Amino acid sequence: MNKAALFEQIQKKKSFLCVGLDTDPSKIPAHLLDTEDPIFEFNKAIIDATKDYCVAYKPNIAFYEALGVKGWESLQKTLDYIPSEIFTIADAKRGDIGNTSKMYAKAFFESMNFDSITVAPYMGEDSVTPFLEFDNKWVILLAATSNKGGLDFQYQKIENGQMVFEKVLEKSLEWGNEKNLMYVVGATRADFLEKVRKIVPNSFLLVPGVGAQGGSLEEVAKYGMNDTCGLLVNSSRGIIYASNSEDFAEVASAEAKKLQEQMAVMLEKYS
Amino acid sequence: MNKAALFEQIQKKKSFLCVGLDTDPSKIPAHLLDTEDPIFEFNKAIIDATKDYCVAYKPNIAFYEALGVKGWESLQKTLDYIPSEIFTIADAKRGDIGNTSKMYAKAFFESMNFDSITVAPYMGEDSVTPFLEFDNKWVILLAATSNKGGLDFQYQKIENGQMVFEKVLEKSLEWGNEKNLMYVVGATRADFLEKVRKIVPNSFLLVPGVGAQGGSLEEVAKYGMNDTCGLLVNSSRGIIYASNSEDFAEVASAEAKKLQEQMAVMLEKYS
Repeated sequence: MNKAALFEQIQKKKSFLCVGLDTDPSKIPAHLLDTEDPIFEFNKAIIDATKDYCVAYKPNIAFYEALGVKGWESLQKTLDYIPSEIFTIADAKRGDIGNTSKMYAKAFFESMNFDSITVAPYMGEDSVTPFLEFDNKWVILLAATSNKGGLDFQYQKIENGQMVFEKVLEKSLEWGNEKNLMYVVGATRADFLEKVRKIVPNSFLLVPGVGAQGGSLEEVAKYGMNDTCGLLVNSSRGIIYASNSEDFAEVASAEAKKLQEQMAVMLEKYS
Repeated sequence: MNKAALFEQIQKKKSFLCVGLDTDPSKIPAHLLDTEDPIFEFNKAIIDATKDYCVAYKPNIAFYEALGVKGWESLQKTLDYIPSEIFTIADAKRGDIGNTSKMYAKAFFESMNFDSITVAPYMGEDSVTPFLEFDNKWVILLAATSNKGGLDFQYQKIENGQMVFEKVLEKSLEWGNEKNLMYVVGATRADFLEKVRKIVPNSFLLVPGVGAQGGSLEEVAKYGMNDTCGLLVNSSRGIIYASNSEDFAEVASAEAKKLQEQMAVMLEKYS
């Protein structure tokens, strides 16, 4: 999917919501466990319930990988079920030497046909660029993550006064551009969104950490939005596990709708 | 596997060789492609041919993941075939927020029973520690990698005068110790092994980049070896693709034996 198609979707739905599919057999409603593929049944119901309110789905690959071969099958079925106009993110945080990253790119972009994949920058240029060689596919590079450990290295100040995550943003512009590169920037660091926007004003940012992790949607929109929205705000647990009874899909739908309505206001106000 | 068992194996075989199983359908001998599971057949032959000369095997997970469900099956069969006294490394370079890293740990340590996994440090503490909660399992943390892109961020100097990779080493000692943490340090940076040894004198280092990537075994041993050897030197392509004819296993065996003999000399000289 290209940038124009993504923005069109955002305008149409008045939403920049991404729903995270962190589907865990120990957390899904009990009545689904008797079905042949509980993970897929859960995802299918969540997709049906939320697809009008979101513009992206983000399966968290670890949750599928942990289930072995069966998990990969559930993932593929989920991906096939997502409507084609909705952006898909493999939240995989891959990154390795060139020939290996190329293999990961093939896995997620060719075997599985995801629109994008999250990539860790620690190994630098040749670990990232193999993912950038596919038309209409995206790298979503980790920059400033929302977890506590993000502070350990990403916020270290380097010699030129930049923080490590700023160096990552700046360096990445030598490898790609706003048409094939997005960045993970946690909502719990809304004050850093201004710093991020100085380096990548026109790029999309994938923002986790709104809701369960405590970030404010208003702050994110205020500091992060640009004239093509430039934001995908993710919510996982706050939507998919809002209820674990038989009404889980209905409640997920209501939660997604609530966020979409807040986002419509933000789009009006800040873009 | 614990540290004592690993060292015992090194002493017994007079080797600290790790064979990388970067098994690629486009590179294996043509006659194997007609078998039901070419990847496994190749690995099986390589394991039979090299198991007396190495102390570890390192499947590069990307190569299996790229083949989808069938690749994961080949990986599991390979892992089951590796003799139990040989150390196994899932070269996966995972790392994510706490609950997600926990899922990856389950995938590789429980579903698959690897002894260790390579982990990327960019997301800090809570992305690494979930992997450290398993008895006799290891994290092999990326520190100074051997690829060109390694220079982009790992060698940035931070405010206190350290380089980023030194900060990673130092910080990691708050999370684990020489009994559950190893580090990736590229052989192409042998001059940095002294810096590494100042921070983690007793830890094992996984050293890629000898051979194909140009690193020198002698330099690595000279600067990196400690009194329990402390090194696992990896060779992938130099061994497994030394020939792509019907004699591939025989040639791989000879290449592994050659390295083992050099390593026996290094163990005599430097440990």
